[in-house]
Amino acid sequence: MIGLGPGAPELVTPQAAEALAQCQVVLGYRSYVEQARPFLRGQRVEASGMTQERQRADRAIDLALAGQRVVLVSGGDPGIYAMAGLVLELAARRKLALGQGRGALAVSVLPGVPALAAGAALLGAPLMHDFACISLSDRLTPWELIEKRLEMAARADLVLVLYNPRSRGRPWQLGRALEIIAGSRGPHTPVGIVSGAFRKTQRVELVTLERAAEAPADMSSTVFVGNSQSFAYQGRLITPRGYLPTEKN
Amino acid sequence: MIGLGPGAPELVTPQAAEALAQCQVVLGYRSYVEQARPFLRGQRVEASGMTQERQRADRAIDLALAGQRVVLVSGGDPGIYAMAGLVLELAARRKLALGQGRGALAVSVLPGVPALAAGAALLGAPLMHDFACISLSDRLTPWELIEKRLEMAARADLVLVLYNPRSRGRPWQLGRALEIIAGSRGPHTPVGIVSGAFRKTQRVELVTLERAAEAPADMSSTVFVGNSQSFAYQGRLITPRGYLPTEKN
Repeated sequence: MIGLGPGAPELVTPQAAEALAQCQVVLGYRSYVEQARPFLRGQRVEASGMTQERQRADRAIDLALAGQRVVLVSGGDPGIYAMAGLVLELAARRKLALGQGRGALAVSVLPGVPALAAGAALLGAPLMHDFACISLSDRLTPWELIEKRLEMAARADLVLVLYNPRSRGRPWQLGRALEIIAGSRGPHTPVGIVSGAFRKTQRVELVTLERAAEAPADMSSTVFVGNSQSFAYQGRLITPRGYLPTEKN
Repeated sequence: MIGLGPGAPELVTPQAAEALAQCQVVLGYRSYVEQARPFLRGQRVEASGMTQERQRADRAIDLALAGQRVVLVSGGDPGIYAMAGLVLELAARRKLALGQGRGALAVSVLPGVPALAAGAALLGAPLMHDFACISLSDRLTPWELIEKRLEMAARADLVLVLYNPRSRGRPWQLGRALEIIAGSRGPHTPVGIVSGAFRKTQRVELVTLERAAEAPADMSSTVFVGNSQSFAYQGRLITPRGYLPTEKN
């Protein structure tokens, strides 16, 4: 299982590129498979749709058990809301032995540059202090649990990284999330929204908490809400680490 | 500002490697500068010690303002508890213009593979659901705030990633942190400890919350505490994303 990073070829690790070059079959969601193509040498490719994660993971396992060298591609890092966990979950369900032996599933997770690091880099340095990463997708998680996590993280003054902030089918979750966060953070708290990081469609917006719900965001976006010390400076979002004695910024 | 990833050359992004090849001066903490050497072409190197972050950042800014192409190296990702924020903070303090013009500081953050992604990959897939990343170093942060964050994150059932878990001068913080987490999570919660990820000294341990305080950990370690759904399977730490209907694991 590999992660291709945010989308630019220069952010694909040599380790992931080598796995693609050496494999026999590549599986993945359509747009990630397209991102992987420049690293392939004519290998077989099986692209599938957005909600076919389980079938894709089962298929990858079956091909691997049949002796194929399989790469399953994710965007960003394969272990952060991506495919690595599902494959391991299914291996556990199927009671497969993990390892190199006969009948065993030899499985490796190769890390990538996650969306949280890519977005943070484009904004400046919002993640210089403790943070929580929360997905706003309630497709697989009850919304009540997401709300509880948002509230606790906001009260703990953690920087917030919001994955999957908005989609056509989930238009209101981001607004509600920002409302919850505003319960323990000021209206002028800086908020950064990065969409299509390191891709042609890249867009970086720096706004304030009170205005953030109106900002454009979709499934390619990651939203960063500063903590009580974060500040904006010339278009950058900065969270102090604590090295410098406090003074008014 | 670049991040070299966890330590293996095959996890350095081509973008970071290119920045090293094209720069005129490299600055950084000693061991990161050593990691960067294979990517250099004889450029000047200024290595410095662990507590000299501020001097190093100021020096990097001064050299850049004097017209040098400077790379400041961090381990992992440069924006997660690393050097990117300090440079931007100092630029703000010094009221420097950011950008390409005369007298302005042209500054870019190039993302890297963070320790949280590297450690997670070696453990399996602990970060498949919402998580909080908290540093246990109280050198720059009051311990009371760290405790509050640990407690809130534990109550919110977030997976926990603990940076800087233990050092010679901070021997008790990890034990206390695990005690706080145990206030809202069961004794058999799986805990993964990854030290020296993707380096020769690499060590991966999978234990339970009640035993985790005894496990070896140092400044090269990252500690992962599962949420209430996380489970261990054949030496892997897996947090379900929610794709599969629940059944007893």
